[in-house]
Amino acid sequence: MESFNSRSSFAALTKIFAGTGITPPNDLTPHVLASFVGFVLRGIGQVMLQNNSYTGLLFLIGIFYHSATLGCAALLGGVASTLTAVLLGAERSHISAGLFGFNGVLVGIALLYFLEPNSLTWGYVIIAAACSTIIMSALLNLLSTWNFPALTAPFVITTLLFILASARFGRLASTDILPTAGLPTAATVEGVVTFSTLMEGLFNGVAQVFFQGSLITGIIFAIGLLVSSRLAFAAALFGSFIGMLVAWGMGADEVAIRAGAFGFNCVLTAIVFAELAMKNTASFIYATLAVVATAVVFAAMSAALEPLGMPALTSPFVLVVWLFLLAGPQFKQLKPPESS
Amino acid sequence: MESFNSRSSFAALTKIFAGTGITPPNDLTPHVLASFVGFVLRGIGQVMLQNNSYTGLLFLIGIFYHSATLGCAALLGGVASTLTAVLLGAERSHISAGLFGFNGVLVGIALLYFLEPNSLTWGYVIIAAACSTIIMSALLNLLSTWNFPALTAPFVITTLLFILASARFGRLASTDILPTAGLPTAATVEGVVTFSTLMEGLFNGVAQVFFQGSLITGIIFAIGLLVSSRLAFAAALFGSFIGMLVAWGMGADEVAIRAGAFGFNCVLTAIVFAELAMKNTASFIYATLAVVATAVVFAAMSAALEPLGMPALTSPFVLVVWLFLLAGPQFKQLKPPESS
Amino acid sequence: MESFNSRSSFAALTKIFAGTGITPPNDLTPHVLASFVGFVLRGIGQVMLQNNSYTGLLFLIGIFYHSATLGCAALLGGVASTLTAVLLGAERSHISAGLFGFNGVLVGIALLYFLEPNSLTWGYVIIAAACSTIIMSALLNLLSTWNFPALTAPFVITTLLFILASARFGRLASTDILPTAGLPTAATVEGVVTFSTLMEGLFNGVAQVFFQGSLITGIIFAIGLLVSSRLAFAAALFGSFIGMLVAWGMGADEVAIRAGAFGFNCVLTAIVFAELAMKNTASFIYATLAVVATAVVFAAMSAALEPLGMPALTSPFVLVVWLFLLAGPQFKQLKPPESS
Repeated sequence: MESFNSRSSFAALTKIFAGTGITPPNDLTPHVLASFVGFVLRGIGQVMLQNNSYTGLLFLIGIFYHSATLGCAALLGGVASTLTAVLLGAERSHISAGLFGFNGVLVGIALLYFLEPNSLTWGYVIIAAACSTIIMSALLNLLSTWNFPALTAPFVITTLLFILASARFGRLASTDILPTAGLPTAATVEGVVTFSTLMEGLFNGVAQVFFQGSLITGIIFAIGLLVSSRLAFAAALFGSFIGMLVAWGMGADEVAIRAGAFGFNCVLTAIVFAELAMKNTASFIYATLAVVATAVVFAAMSAALEPLGMPALTSPFVLVVWLFLLAGPQFKQLKPPESS
Repeated sequence: MESFNSRSSFAALTKIFAGTGITPPNDLTPHVLASFVGFVLRGIGQVMLQNNSYTGLLFLIGIFYHSATLGCAALLGGVASTLTAVLLGAERSHISAGLFGFNGVLVGIALLYFLEPNSLTWGYVIIAAACSTIIMSALLNLLSTWNFPALTAPFVITTLLFILASARFGRLASTDILPTAGLPTAATVEGVVTFSTLMEGLFNGVAQVFFQGSLITGIIFAIGLLVSSRLAFAAALFGSFIGMLVAWGMGADEVAIRAGAFGFNCVLTAIVFAELAMKNTASFIYATLAVVATAVVFAAMSAALEPLGMPALTSPFVLVVWLFLLAGPQFKQLKPPESS
Repeated sequence: MESFNSRSSFAALTKIFAGTGITPPNDLTPHVLASFVGFVLRGIGQVMLQNNSYTGLLFLIGIFYHSATLGCAALLGGVASTLTAVLLGAERSHISAGLFGFNGVLVGIALLYFLEPNSLTWGYVIIAAACSTIIMSALLNLLSTWNFPALTAPFVITTLLFILASARFGRLASTDILPTAGLPTAATVEGVVTFSTLMEGLFNGVAQVFFQGSLITGIIFAIGLLVSSRLAFAAALFGSFIGMLVAWGMGADEVAIRAGAFGFNCVLTAIVFAELAMKNTASFIYATLAVVATAVVFAAMSAALEPLGMPALTSPFVLVVWLFLLAGPQFKQLKPPESS
């Protein structure tokens, strides 16, 4: 029933823009609008790989709870990227599953997180979100050769390019949150990891997927996952926990561990491999190795981008999941017992 | 008639080198030489994607007008890269269309622009130009999977590697023009953009495609384009103009805008998408978004390469055009109305 | 006969771990163990592309001669990466040819070369070597589209990521050998290249393939190559020599030339193209150009990684060989005369 509604309202939505391509809508019914809102909410849910508009709504509430500015940025990014896909005539099933929204949502949040808000910044978000849809489509074409997903690569590429560019643009100022460019130096063990570090870090790791440094927001996000899938919920907490353990064991900075910096990429990796991990012992160890590797690669990417003063974003998640997905078919032990 | 001449003289040219592969020519007739000159001139034209030897000749005149050294470098690079393709037995139709020349031409100019001229530098150009032909062939093979062009990627890769290497080579000294390695810092709005900034910047943007900072050279280049295609001519000026507008609006340095720094990549992007842009409104907006994105990505790449003290070259053009070409087939609105 | 033994013992080895995937071995016969040792030795041999366990044994002796710590690291890395491949059920023929061992061997040596040894470092080697097997499998899948080999790319990627990560991990300290992060600056000609520079550099270049700065170790390695293939032996010395010549001619630092820094990547490139080079004159020049380009790209990569304080490792070898292999099929003159 929902899929029927979604289809018919989609037809209306696209008919509006068809023909000349960019004619302003003249029969934009509330029904069509509601569909579009659904696509954007699913886009927010897809940031944690959930094709579920209720999950997306809870994520959005979690963001607004922590920062209204970032909430608006998420919405603007999601609307601009999804609308670009609609106007250009992208694959309908992709649009309605939110696949053109999640990168735009993250681009919107990241730009407003790292750049001072002014009218130019908001316009910049619209251009960047539109570009994220182009990059998503380019990667869909490129990666189809090996049949693996784009993940948040369009977000990482777009955000790094648009923030780096601000170094040449006098009318865009970065916030204090953007790392200062510097040369990587050796770390020493700083701070003592306590129970409170681990408790806060656990949920901050989930919250940081959307750049939110808030325990409550992390809990709201976790509930959002629970609404969509118990397995995804458990995997997210498992991923955040493993990320912290690796960082703790290796002697990472306590402040970073508490803030969830080592967790958010691991959360995403764990969600991707959650189903595989349930298959057999080898699969579980494979998935866990992927999560551990994600924590190490986060440390590596964060050091690698230090001379540019750029954040690692979700590049560790993208890199590790791509490699482990590509490698998978080569390993017999990752297939179900009957087919091996 | 021309294609017949081209073919027969090509046969003579390759027969010369056939057999042992590298036998010195013993029947090198003037006719064969003239053909080869034609391939090199087309190679110079192909820098702005024009398969036209008259256009190439005008471009060469434009370069010599501004700098005889760079003119010789362009010729040496074009000859070395084209000859490498002939000697190794590359696809004839590619050679005669200048596809193995344009990267060598740019490599030659770039090396003499950024490195002090001495006998070692000229030898370095020959090795580098030969390598650009290998990289071109490698990319032709690699990218054929998705059927998109190599563009100036061989030039960008070769030049970055050969200039970076000079940091380890005591007998190669860089010129003052090479950016000093540094860490990216925030920009402030500097200088006031006036009508003269825009007029000079418009043609300098065209001239900078060949690293020429000269208004007259830019005008000669524009005439060269006009000889080959009115659409390419209009697109080049449109691209240069949009690049300046983006830079101006974002608060980029006036000196850089006047010098055409934000224009040359946009010129190339605009020429590539000129035909597509004429199809319908959506296509026009798509092409314009590509040009705008090119200006932003230029700012980004120029900041990203700052710690290495390396110039962005045409990497923004290559990156943006690759992404927009790869994404294209996913969008129904970019196809002609009848087929959509 | 050997292949039969190898097969049957392999069956035993995998049967052990089959079923649950990770059951501890209960029928681990000496025979099975001997096979596994053979795989690891071939893995050591494959570092210089030799599928020969005697060559691998001589390489191992050469490493132990210079440093027992690095010898243990090589063994641990080779065992961990090969065992990961066995446990996950990778392609048997690949495992028995040592294709899952050579990257692990190099990862082990590199981590112990650049990081202070402590119990965490040894554990780090195991995780990293396991990851190198995943990356190898991912690249096998990815590169099969164009049918070119992964070479030591898994080693380069794994090592760079795991050493970069140590900048965030207080319990991992780097050794003095790791380059200090800095901005690339122009070089001047330093030191005078003498006959002793060239003699030491020739064999150090071979030794540096395994990070060994020892003349005797270089000679043992060369004998190891001779055991497997006279052509590979000659190619290795030719590559090391050409690498030194390029560096000397360009005015590189005498200390670096003597240490074999410009040689080890050229050694590997020369071994890969040795057979092709024997075909005809054009092929020989093509192979030599690849070796020359490798020396230049080593200088470039070493400068490019300076802001991160990272070594170039064998990235120049990987990059150049990939490009020259991809380009090959486009050139008629590289094919045997009868088929051209």
